[in-house]
Amino acid sequence: MNGADSLCDTLLTNDVRVCFANPGTSEMHFVAALDRKPEMRCVLGLSEGVVTGAADGYARMTDRPAATLLHTGPGLANGLANLHNARRARVPLINIVGDHASYHLALDAPLTSDIESLAAPMSNWVRRISGPEDVAGATEAAFRASLSPPGVATLILPADAAWGHVETDQPTRLPRPMPSTVNMDVVRQVAAAIRDTPGEVGILVSGAAARADCLEIAGAIAAAKDVRLFSEMQLPRVERGRGRVALTRIPYPIDAALALLADIDVLVLLGAPEPVAFFAYPGKPGRLVRKGCKVLTLARHGEDLKGALEALRDELGVRQSPPPSRSSNLSDDIVPFGHLTEDAIAVMVAARLPDNAIVCDEGVTSARRLFELSADSAPHDYLMNTGGSIGCGIPLATGAAIACPDRKVINLQADGSGMYTVQGLWTQARENLDIVTIIFANRAYAVLHAEMRNVGVDGIGENARRMMDLDHPAWDWVSIARGMGVDAAGAHSCEQFADLFESALRRRGPFLIEAII
Amino acid sequence: MNGADSLCDTLLTNDVRVCFANPGTSEMHFVAALDRKPEMRCVLGLSEGVVTGAADGYARMTDRPAATLLHTGPGLANGLANLHNARRARVPLINIVGDHASYHLALDAPLTSDIESLAAPMSNWVRRISGPEDVAGATEAAFRASLSPPGVATLILPADAAWGHVETDQPTRLPRPMPSTVNMDVVRQVAAAIRDTPGEVGILVSGAAARADCLEIAGAIAAAKDVRLFSEMQLPRVERGRGRVALTRIPYPIDAALALLADIDVLVLLGAPEPVAFFAYPGKPGRLVRKGCKVLTLARHGEDLKGALEALRDELGVRQSPPPSRSSNLSDDIVPFGHLTEDAIAVMVAARLPDNAIVCDEGVTSARRLFELSADSAPHDYLMNTGGSIGCGIPLATGAAIACPDRKVINLQADGSGMYTVQGLWTQARENLDIVTIIFANRAYAVLHAEMRNVGVDGIGENARRMMDLDHPAWDWVSIARGMGVDAAGAHSCEQFADLFESALRRRGPFLIEAII
Repeated sequence: MNGADSLCDTLLTNDVRVCFANPGTSEMHFVAALDRKPEMRCVLGLSEGVVTGAADGYARMTDRPAATLLHTGPGLANGLANLHNARRARVPLINIVGDHASYHLALDAPLTSDIESLAAPMSNWVRRISGPEDVAGATEAAFRASLSPPGVATLILPADAAWGHVETDQPTRLPRPMPSTVNMDVVRQVAAAIRDTPGEVGILVSGAAARADCLEIAGAIAAAKDVRLFSEMQLPRVERGRGRVALTRIPYPIDAALALLADIDVLVLLGAPEPVAFFAYPGKPGRLVRKGCKVLTLARHGEDLKGALEALRDELGVRQSPPPSRSSNLSDDIVPFGHLTEDAIAVMVAARLPDNAIVCDEGVTSARRLFELSADSAPHDYLMNTGGSIGCGIPLATGAAIACPDRKVINLQADGSGMYTVQGLWTQARENLDIVTIIFANRAYAVLHAEMRNVGVDGIGENARRMMDLDHPAWDWVSIARGMGVDAAGAHSCEQFADLFESALRRRGPFLIEAII
Repeated sequence: MNGADSLCDTLLTNDVRVCFANPGTSEMHFVAALDRKPEMRCVLGLSEGVVTGAADGYARMTDRPAATLLHTGPGLANGLANLHNARRARVPLINIVGDHASYHLALDAPLTSDIESLAAPMSNWVRRISGPEDVAGATEAAFRASLSPPGVATLILPADAAWGHVETDQPTRLPRPMPSTVNMDVVRQVAAAIRDTPGEVGILVSGAAARADCLEIAGAIAAAKDVRLFSEMQLPRVERGRGRVALTRIPYPIDAALALLADIDVLVLLGAPEPVAFFAYPGKPGRLVRKGCKVLTLARHGEDLKGALEALRDELGVRQSPPPSRSSNLSDDIVPFGHLTEDAIAVMVAARLPDNAIVCDEGVTSARRLFELSADSAPHDYLMNTGGSIGCGIPLATGAAIACPDRKVINLQADGSGMYTVQGLWTQARENLDIVTIIFANRAYAVLHAEMRNVGVDGIGENARRMMDLDHPAWDWVSIARGMGVDAAGAHSCEQFADLFESALRRRGPFLIEAII
């Protein structure tokens, strides 16, 4: 066998069974090895942003790494923006980046570049394979690095390591990493702070703590001890909806975020870093907690978040209680009337969200109201853009649908962001993925209009307008989607939208609705 | 004024008058400053690969830098693949990468990343601006760095340097860098080698040496001294066609490249590095000259290539002679019959190429025959993918058309590569650029099929096929282009293609032909 076979075998033995790929010449032996392993599902993306974003979506829904296959430095570079989001989502992911044969690098052939320098900022771990006999060990190390704590591992595979001979060896099946034991000193310290603080206490959750089982425990603590539950601004994944404990998300607009946390005296972090402003604004603080707020870390990403919550619950003497049932005004026969707006879409989608749906939100400014309303929708998972790098929505939905073929995926997609990785629609068509994409077609980088005002600029002229508005020509998403093999239709009115969304929910396979707002 | 104004003024004073842009929140003050400078032409790209590739195309046609405006690490990352090509094309280019306010970086907000590490591999020069008062000096340094020798300069602009106050200062107009004087020792050494070598001598040109004036001198030397003229495999830009001195391009396939250079005893380099194989192949050499071939460098990129050629001509006592007139079989009434093929397209396009056209070639496997035939077309410029990073064609054409609004641009575009930066069609529509895009729709990464065989793999299965073929579904370029505002039509037969191409040449503005082969 050769190094490429060894790599495939090591991945498969460790249940890495999906490879999102866009290969090139230096990966041909790896492609040939994949060809000998029909049990590896290879999913082609037409640009690497699709590849890495799909691997992120897959990992968010399975808590397991997929592999990506990327071609040399430029191929990796194309995938970095969505790797940035994946790193900020703290998901497990293994990049395989093919490179020239090691002896070819010194010649500085046209495709040569410093892959390590490119990979480092968006990876938690980087290693270059030294030769065929190093492949299995390096791949095992990448697998381990991707899981403890979960993060992005990047493995550079020189062509001669892929094509070189390897003595046949049984690959090792590695144990899943065990979370560290709960630190009871920390638990007691947090419990004391919750008990003894006269003022307001908040718990801020993210990562694995935003799953329903953890939230049930957190909700019981919150109800019994008058603690407020917050979520990170950009949640990788949260299980929410009717019957589940709700979180108050830290809002993106700086003033709203500061106001929300203004009276918190103790903030307990669980799987989340301390909240900070997404951007700096002249004259405004970067830290979102007020001066003097005590910030405690109950457990970090990669530690046993559920165990820490259980220990905190027990330490506080809180009994498990049923989650509060909330009243809801959502009804699936609501059809607002007339001209389509963001709010009207929010009401219609929240009311009709199917049970167990997966919602990907790259709606940017357009989906904020929908996020609020869907707290009372049928139970669902909600995935966000975690790193602020736009172009994640279509790929995330693609990966989530591959991870969960029996669940409906709804992608809330701002038009400007969606154009970044529009190529992902083709992968949705090819794999016949069950995804409804809703394009919020406001034909502008609407967030930039708001941010211009936030930084103190009033009134814009021609140069600024031409960099923030996406008209002249307005694009036609229906035409673009059909050109990539995804059936699509446009909605101008609420009635049209409701009809299209309902019919999209009834069918299987990808469908795109261009909601002209 | 603020730092952003200072940056704009410094660019404009030095005739940097085009800014290809995709801004974000951290660049809002820069956008506001651009808004106050209507003399700066701002061109929006819907993804950063379009932005950087267009800046490359602009620089190839003007020999001057455009600015790019990119948003933080991920925005730069999206543009790196085409910056890689630009760096390999050795063109002047100034990236402005906006970043968080300097004091915000320590908070590790979601969009934070190590921009220097990302920029370094695809830049010849990188600098982070230290504050508002550093803006003018750093921008001047970037301008100088982009021109001597021409290359990619990346300037990181923290938001607080953009919004901070600067005492008004008259920006400096910098002199164009003067090329170094010709090294006569080297000229004499090369002349001696040409005179005294009993065997075959070749001159390999690239960069500024591939312009018509230099080629005329090289052609005179070649004719008088029985020297062969070669060009680099991936030429940034060559002036060619009827009445111009032709070059023999080093071919991409390794065996053909080795065969071409097998009997060369002395190879003289002019603005080009020594030729090497694009990829390594098991058992084949990486250097393309034979063992024992003497490699001499007459002048390097950034040196006075024309001056060196003139000195060599004089040293050899060669008189300027008219370029050889070649007979041509091209006639613009040729219409091959029936089913469309790559060769038929080659004949039709080469015969009809308008005078002074700019041809961008990202045809990959599909345009090789067209390159050969067009040596006898009307005089034109021919631009290639220099770094092997695919997705350059549509952006290059966009930038070339902005640089040369009075010339027809023809983009020869492989379908798989074109899909990488398909968003660039929208910029062509918005700016109403005079570009005809010809999509070679073979619905495969055809080069990978060939490369599988080159690395010794025969017969492919399902996994490999699904990573190299772009069918199921086949995309519809006409629908995609129209969705982005570019008029388009498909051609199945030679007759259809000839009609469409002729009508596209008669109109102004962007048009796309999907050539189904």
